[in-house]
Amino acid sequence: MVEVLRFKKEDLLAYVVKYMGKLGVPQEDAKIVGDVLLSADIRGTDSHGMIRLASYYGNRLRNKFINPLTPIKIVSETDTTALIDGGNGCGQVVSYKAMKLAIEKAKKSSVGIVTVKHSDHYGIAAYYAMMALEEDMLGVSMTNSQPLVAPTYGKTAVLGTNPIAVAAPSYNEYPYVLDMATSTVPIGRVKVYEKEGKKIPLGWAIDSDGNITEDPKKCQSGYIGALMPLGGTDIMRGYKGYGLALLVDILCGVLPGGSNLTEIGFPHEPKEADVGHFFMAVNINAFRPVIDFKKQMDHVIKMLKDAPKAPGRDRIYIAGEKEYDNAKYNEEHGVPVIAPVIEDLKKDGEKMGLPFDISPVSKENK
Amino acid sequence: MVEVLRFKKEDLLAYVVKYMGKLGVPQEDAKIVGDVLLSADIRGTDSHGMIRLASYYGNRLRNKFINPLTPIKIVSETDTTALIDGGNGCGQVVSYKAMKLAIEKAKKSSVGIVTVKHSDHYGIAAYYAMMALEEDMLGVSMTNSQPLVAPTYGKTAVLGTNPIAVAAPSYNEYPYVLDMATSTVPIGRVKVYEKEGKKIPLGWAIDSDGNITEDPKKCQSGYIGALMPLGGTDIMRGYKGYGLALLVDILCGVLPGGSNLTEIGFPHEPKEADVGHFFMAVNINAFRPVIDFKKQMDHVIKMLKDAPKAPGRDRIYIAGEKEYDNAKYNEEHGVPVIAPVIEDLKKDGEKMGLPFDISPVSKENK
Repeated sequence: MVEVLRFKKEDLLAYVVKYMGKLGVPQEDAKIVGDVLLSADIRGTDSHGMIRLASYYGNRLRNKFINPLTPIKIVSETDTTALIDGGNGCGQVVSYKAMKLAIEKAKKSSVGIVTVKHSDHYGIAAYYAMMALEEDMLGVSMTNSQPLVAPTYGKTAVLGTNPIAVAAPSYNEYPYVLDMATSTVPIGRVKVYEKEGKKIPLGWAIDSDGNITEDPKKCQSGYIGALMPLGGTDIMRGYKGYGLALLVDILCGVLPGGSNLTEIGFPHEPKEADVGHFFMAVNINAFRPVIDFKKQMDHVIKMLKDAPKAPGRDRIYIAGEKEYDNAKYNEEHGVPVIAPVIEDLKKDGEKMGLPFDISPVSKENK
Repeated sequence: MVEVLRFKKEDLLAYVVKYMGKLGVPQEDAKIVGDVLLSADIRGTDSHGMIRLASYYGNRLRNKFINPLTPIKIVSETDTTALIDGGNGCGQVVSYKAMKLAIEKAKKSSVGIVTVKHSDHYGIAAYYAMMALEEDMLGVSMTNSQPLVAPTYGKTAVLGTNPIAVAAPSYNEYPYVLDMATSTVPIGRVKVYEKEGKKIPLGWAIDSDGNITEDPKKCQSGYIGALMPLGGTDIMRGYKGYGLALLVDILCGVLPGGSNLTEIGFPHEPKEADVGHFFMAVNINAFRPVIDFKKQMDHVIKMLKDAPKAPGRDRIYIAGEKEYDNAKYNEEHGVPVIAPVIEDLKKDGEKMGLPFDISPVSKENK
């Protein structure tokens, strides 16, 4: 059981802006970082939210592995494409701007693709794909990341968990928002099982000898063992997950001419992350009236929801649905942050002369 | 053990053209269909090759569920996009033309996306993605298909095995060619296990009650049980495979305004398939010199191949590598077709007054 504190979003956002400001991040940029972080907590993806402010972004800004000024440079550009050098600045800032640019291009030319090199971790992949929804477009967002996943028939971590996010608008239903790591699970999930003293299912991880393992201690952050790609073993078609992880590395590493695979830095390493991203926006109206598309989306969603359920199940979900439900609840009741994260923020804030003195709107146990 | 006969590609192609001609398909179109079918056999994907000529395409052309003239209509078009109505003609013909159009658009505008509605089964997804390789572009190809896969928490087949294919060129290495069903396995793989009297692994299929099953008899072509999406169960993240299958249905069914999910016809049903496709070409040169991209691809492939191997494994594969090895061998030694398929072709040919009298270049047992 853990204590969960709920805060007003604007209070947390104001703190993030002050915090980042202390580390040299301009106010407008810090607002973007804060919005991406808080979106994660609001959507229930708390592994990518406030928990990372001090432990990841704060530390790395302080140590100059992230350039607080995010000196973006457009390396090449056409009506439909752009390649951006993120100057190893804040991943959220370059990503927000890159997706905006993709959307602008899609407005004029129906499609926009923007790739980014020399960037830092950009938070939740879905955030940028969902930016397209506001414009009634399809949105795509991907990033490569530090090596945690073994290729099929390999025994060490070579690929990142390389997520793929795609968003498509609907009419009355929630939009479709896929946001999936291309590994079976992220490393954080293995750590949760370890903490709880549970075995992990076969197909999540291999040990350092390359054998499939049920022991979460044998899969630790890329140095001990490795995660398995989506699917797991060969017989369960783990090579498809591996193929998807490599696809993300091609689009985010090779296309922009950045780093790939084991060249990408770990959060704890004294170097830049040097990850890359891929963003795409597609203007649905170029194909057919977007209203027709959205109504057909509702029809498809209804067909899925009305389909017969498996034993013990009463609901079939659409990608992103749980996150929308979370967001609905959390926007009303406050952004949830677990007590240990608040403790860390308090300690870090003291060191920085920036006390974390925000009052929660409520507390609960989870 | 099964006898495999090998033929000259041009002999089989000439037969397909005559065969299709008898059923009203114009010669130029029949050449496209033949090339796609033979590519499948050459690449080792024999489930999508000559085996389907009589059993699927022949039957359905004869019964007018495929329009032999493939009356293509461009419904809407911009510099970068097009929506094509395939007139429920030959899926290969409209798909070939759609991908060509996407490539032409990418030449002029860096990106081309073409969606197709009212089409028929288009064969191997990789074929169209790989067309982009000849132009040093990235290629994407997807199709929706008849319902065989249950959504996570569902108990009936609602989604197709909806494949995703992506191709990216390399320099000295084989190109990257991903071609994956978004289900764990295709239905044909379950049938192979059934024939061999073997249990199927847990995570491939559910029975008609929605329970996971090891009995291949309990998963039969969408009417009895269902395939599971890539990943399998919830705990193994089958909902990601489900999310990808739905993505394909959105891009191939909703975007062009065609059929979705259970609206799509089964091969044995007396109606049009009414599937849809999605094609994309991306001009790498718009981002950076393609030569640099290709050399970096080689570098990435080498890193993967040099990575430490799991016990009992001596090679890490890249998506599409096995198929390139197959193609190399089969182009030299002849297109392999198993004897039972030749028997069917002979019977069908007699009925049509078109004797299948091609001499194989060799025979072997497999």
